[in-house]
This record gives sequence, structure tokens and C-alpha cells, in this order.
Amino acid sequence: MRDVSIIGIGQTPVGEHWGRSLRHLAYDAVAAAMRNANIERADALYVGNMLSGEISGQSHLGTLIADFAGLRGIEAVKVEAACASAAAAFRQAYIGVASGLQDIVIAVGVEKMTDDVGTQLSAGLAGAADADYEVIHGITFVALNALIMKRYMHEYNVAREDFAGFAINAHANAAANNNAMFQNPITKKDFVNCGVVADPVGLLDASPMADGAAAVILCPTEQAREFTDNAIRIKASALATDTLSVHDRRDPLWLQAAEDSSMRAYKQAGIGPEDIDFFELHDAFTIMAALSLEASGFAQRGHGTWLALDGEITPEGKIPISTRGGLKARGHPVGATGLYQIVEAAQQLRGEAGNNQIKNAALGMTQNIGGSGATIVTHIFERVNQ
Amino acid sequence: MRDVSIIGIGQTPVGEHWGRSLRHLAYDAVAAAMRNANIERADALYVGNMLSGEISGQSHLGTLIADFAGLRGIEAVKVEAACASAAAAFRQAYIGVASGLQDIVIAVGVEKMTDDVGTQLSAGLAGAADADYEVIHGITFVALNALIMKRYMHEYNVAREDFAGFAINAHANAAANNNAMFQNPITKKDFVNCGVVADPVGLLDASPMADGAAAVILCPTEQAREFTDNAIRIKASALATDTLSVHDRRDPLWLQAAEDSSMRAYKQAGIGPEDIDFFELHDAFTIMAALSLEASGFAQRGHGTWLALDGEITPEGKIPISTRGGLKARGHPVGATGLYQIVEAAQQLRGEAGNNQIKNAALGMTQNIGGSGATIVTHIFERVNQ
Repeated sequence: MRDVSIIGIGQTPVGEHWGRSLRHLAYDAVAAAMRNANIERADALYVGNMLSGEISGQSHLGTLIADFAGLRGIEAVKVEAACASAAAAFRQAYIGVASGLQDIVIAVGVEKMTDDVGTQLSAGLAGAADADYEVIHGITFVALNALIMKRYMHEYNVAREDFAGFAINAHANAAANNNAMFQNPITKKDFVNCGVVADPVGLLDASPMADGAAAVILCPTEQAREFTDNAIRIKASALATDTLSVHDRRDPLWLQAAEDSSMRAYKQAGIGPEDIDFFELHDAFTIMAALSLEASGFAQRGHGTWLALDGEITPEGKIPISTRGGLKARGHPVGATGLYQIVEAAQQLRGEAGNNQIKNAALGMTQNIGGSGATIVTHIFERVNQ
Repeated sequence: MRDVSIIGIGQTPVGEHWGRSLRHLAYDAVAAAMRNANIERADALYVGNMLSGEISGQSHLGTLIADFAGLRGIEAVKVEAACASAAAAFRQAYIGVASGLQDIVIAVGVEKMTDDVGTQLSAGLAGAADADYEVIHGITFVALNALIMKRYMHEYNVAREDFAGFAINAHANAAANNNAMFQNPITKKDFVNCGVVADPVGLLDASPMADGAAAVILCPTEQAREFTDNAIRIKASALATDTLSVHDRRDPLWLQAAEDSSMRAYKQAGIGPEDIDFFELHDAFTIMAALSLEASGFAQRGHGTWLALDGEITPEGKIPISTRGGLKARGHPVGATGLYQIVEAAQQLRGEAGNNQIKNAALGMTQNIGGSGATIVTHIFERVNQ
């Protein structure tokens, strides 16, 4: 297998894009990434997306986006794994290059959520859970996370406000990210006083629905220098699954697929969690941030919130997370999120993160979660130069 | 890259499965393929499906099917390219094994269409076309094919009944296939007198909507003998795209992506169309069969129907097509069809096609089409033993 690197990145701002359709958003990100990599052609395009069929009446995004981005005729498909769709698409792009079959490959994640005018969006998002055994009982995706959070608080004797640090850190970091949806800092008082969405999940525990697209260009590491002095190497890539239904798990408070994929990634990279300089995790809900830190080896079981309470997740802390705002404040266009995380990791490793720059960042990890931990994709990236 | 072979196949009957849900159908096909290959585990699962979100309120099929098939935790994703989803998923499985990353990989295509009780199905299928520039004008997917067929008849001076041979051959072949939806032979009189769906597309030009699932197991060719004496080698694999909208094409009567993918496949295999013993093509509509034969080098431009008129597409003809009934008579569960074609090609090459057996079949080709020619996936398979 060939070694693979990222040679270009692109993204649109995350938000409510009333003037840009699905294809325009994807085009914006792909075109930006192609300019960034100085390329005009590619061998293949992998599209991460969850909801285009339900919200926009549009399947077949591979071909649509390839043609609209000026790449008519190239190989193109969509990859879907609920909210982990973009990292899953990135992984297929990585495998395509690693195999030797494709040289220049584009991975783009795109989601247009705000076009929905009815109940399609909540129903579509619930499709990430088990339609026959969870959703049929009336549960929404937020409610599933609320049940997990409630159980966590009970089991580990944790208070609702102990989760505040995750949201405060995310908003503080988003303030310096022009592409973030919410660039306003928040306080602990805001967190405690915000409305409740699904008890105990408050408005500031939950990431916002949004539109957006993010893209990267991959090529074999040995060819990367032809395109850029700033290549970012993919040091590890792993995807694991769990049960789709939360009730089928031996322990609903343990993200087995996060443990499986992160341990596999550490092994591939020949490192441990202590070597990671920052971690773009999947903070769709604050409870997911805590569980992700625990299952990936950054905190002991039940101690995920302690890292936030101790300030260890901030840019100056032991393991900075959500360094550009995370899902919480950058925004969570579901099928695009995994590639936003990867673009942001590349920014950190290139030293292009501006006021959010993690000092001497050499190794970064991303983790994209589909469903309530049902599909988890973990990547480790490495700075090649400097 | 490693050489890759099919070591197991499985399928459900195609039809209206009121008693089996999406996951059950997928399970049936995966379990049959695993038994056929004598395996109990796999490294990865690729799921081809188009409409589960729209029809069944269920995304996230990779994880769902992996878990339900007893493979909890393994890598699993869904691949979507409209009606070409299954062949696209198969190609990703092939790349996974070829790359050296995965050893035993399952590809399954599944579609449950008959659960729909409203207009979701027509709307969902239209998602294979361009929502913003075609579907918004009220066109359905059948109507798009009707426009292409009408143009073909005008341009090449072909009559409606000249397409009869495609439907007659498909039904004749399905009569000996227990898994086919329509096992009744039809006559030219039936074809001429049948009702019109969208002028000039008649009921017997169009493939039926259906439920079904088909699966295959892949592994490196050099390991195949450990599992079976009947391995089928993947001699070529290619995926090409075109414009999504038919009106954007220079020539709406030419399947450029069929030409691109089949020529690439011939080159990989080091052969030409004259070497192919049978061709499982995408006869969703009779017009697509004609266009596919032309663009893939089996007939001159405008002469696709001549092959049918001359009897050259029957099992005894020059280029047998739809040897187990094709989309027309075996049935067309859209996101599963590409894997039905591949399973049927493997049956022919193994000598397991019963009364439909093509004599001395050594090289078979499959071609799965998404949209009106927007994504086309072509594979060439070779008998390894005998």
C-alpha cells in the first residue's frame, strides 16, 4: 500500500446558506481545495452526505458534483454512514490512493439541511438510529443522546453543569474561526440558564443543524512535493462499527467503536494518546465529547468531564479539542462534518490556524461519529515538513 | 495491487416481500453468500442501496446490516450511485481487497421498494435524475427514458415493436430462474398490445420495481483456493460518469459513460467485446439495452435493436444478454440490481445457471447504470478453473 497525504483543503462557511444549493456548496469547497492544491484534474471523487435524498429530493451526488465541479466523466460515488459520512468518504478516498488505483482523489462532504420546510429533517436525522426498534417508538436523535447523558450523570454522579466546559471551549475557539456558525463566546451562566431541548440536553449541549461543505485533495506522499510544501500525511485510518440500537449494547456509556477505531489507529501510527497534540472530536452533544475522550484513551471511564473541568481541553491544555469550534460552535452539517474536522486538523498541522493555532502541533487526531456511536471513524495526521 | 476473486454468492428471490424487511433481505443474501464461501467472518462490508432513507426512514445501512448479519463491529459503509449503487459498492469492495487493506470483504446490494404507500417511491426514483433542472419540471424517471426512446426511434427510423426482442428474451430466460419476479414467457403480440406507461415506453419495455438483495464475498485470488474450487476472477473493474441531466449531453443517444467504462475494462482485461461470452446489461428499459450494446461495442450506433431482431441476444446468439431474466424479468430492486447481475455472471461462469447455462462461458461482462446513463459501472469476470 502507498503512503497518502493531503495536498489541498477547502471549505465553505458553516451556516444557513439560503442563496447556495447543495451543488453550489459542494462546488465551492471542491474548487477551493483544487486551487489550494494547484490541480485542475482528479482521478476520482468521493462524496460524503447523509440527507440529500430526504431534504433535497436528490440522490446520485457523486455524478452531480463531479460534473458541476468541472470534472465531467471521472469516477465518482457517494458514501453514507449517517453523521460519519464525510470521514467514511475520506477513508474510501484514502484507500483508493493507497491501493495504487487512483493518484489524485477528492473527498468532499456536503450537507444542505436548512432547505427543509417540514418535519423531514428530524425524521431524516432519526434515520441514523434504528428505524424499526428505536425511532418507531417516537424517539428523536436528540432524545437518544438525552437518555445516554442522563444515564451518565446517574452512573458517574456528574452534574449537568459539569458539561459546561465543552460548550464554553468550543464557542471560545469558534470566535477566531471565520467559517464558524457561532462566533460568540459563552459563559458558564449562559450554559446553566439556557433552555432545555430534551432533558438533560440543553440548547448549549447540542450542536446546530447547518449547511456547509468541506473538501480535501489526496495523493501519494511521494508525489505530494510536486504540488505543495505543506503536505499532511495520513498516519492512520480506521473505521469500526457497533450496534445501531443503543439498547443492544452491553454498556450504553461506552463507545466500543471509538475504542476499536482509535486503538487500531494508534497501533498503525505506532503511538499512544499521549502523543496526540490535539483532537477534533465529535461533540454533536457534550455527552459525546465526554464519551469520546474516555473510549479513545484520554480520560478514564466516567472522567471525561473532569478534563473539561480542569481546563485540559483548551488550546493550552493537555489535549486541546474542538480547536476551531467543534460541531458545537463551528456547526454540524451532518454529512460534511467529518471533512470539516479533517480540514481543521490540516490547518493546525500546517500552522494556518491563526489565533487558534496549537503550538508545535505535529500530530492531530480526528474522530467522526455516526448515530449514537454506531459508526466511528478515527484518523491520525502528521506534519511532514518544518 | 492484488488480484481479486469472488468466492461466494447469495441472493433472495426478487419480488414483493411483504414478510421480510430491509435488514432481513440483506441478511438472507449475506448469510447465503457466507455459507457459499464457507466463511464465518469478514473484514469489511460494503452496502449498495439507493432508497432506504426515503422509503424505510432508515439511513446507516452499513452498521445496521453488519450487526444484523452477525458481524458486529466490522468496518461497514453504504455506497450510493442511484440505480448503480450495488456495482459501485462492489467496486469499493474490490478496491479494498486489491489495496491489501482488507482480506475477506462482503458486498451486498439491497432494496425494499414495496413498503412505500404513497408517492415517495416515484419521487425517490426521480432523485436519480437532476432535481433542480429535470425533476422540478414534473418529469419522472420513466418519462426521461420515454423521451430518449422517442428520439432514438426518430433518429434511427426504428419502430416500437423493434424493441420487442429485448423483453421476449428477458422473460424467456427468467422462466428458468427461480429467483426471477416474472417467470412467464411473453410473445411479440403481448409486447405490441401491452399498455403504455409513458409514450413510447410500454409496460413490457419497463422493468418492475421490487424488493431483493444479492451479495458476494471477495478475497485475494491467491487465497481463493482455501475457500472454493469455483473462484471467479475479477478481470476488470471500471466506473465512469457523465452529466446528470440528459439535456446537458452532446448526444442524448450515446452512453458516454458506458463507452468510457467498457473501453477501460476491455483495456484492463486485454480483450475486446468479441471475446465476451455473455453480457448482463442494464435493461431497466428496452431503450437502455439498445444504447448499452452500442456504447459498449457490440453494435454500431443506431443498430442496437438489430441484434435483438436477429436473435443474437438469446442464449444461442452472438452476445447473450439478460441470461437470467435481466432487470426486465428477474426484476429491478434498484440499489441491489448491480449485485444480482454479478451473482448471475458468477453462476454462468461456475456452470451453475441450469437451463440458462451459456455453453463454455469463460468471460462474462456486467454493466450497471445509474440514472439515464449518468453513472455506469462495468466489470469483466473470468472463470479461473475448469
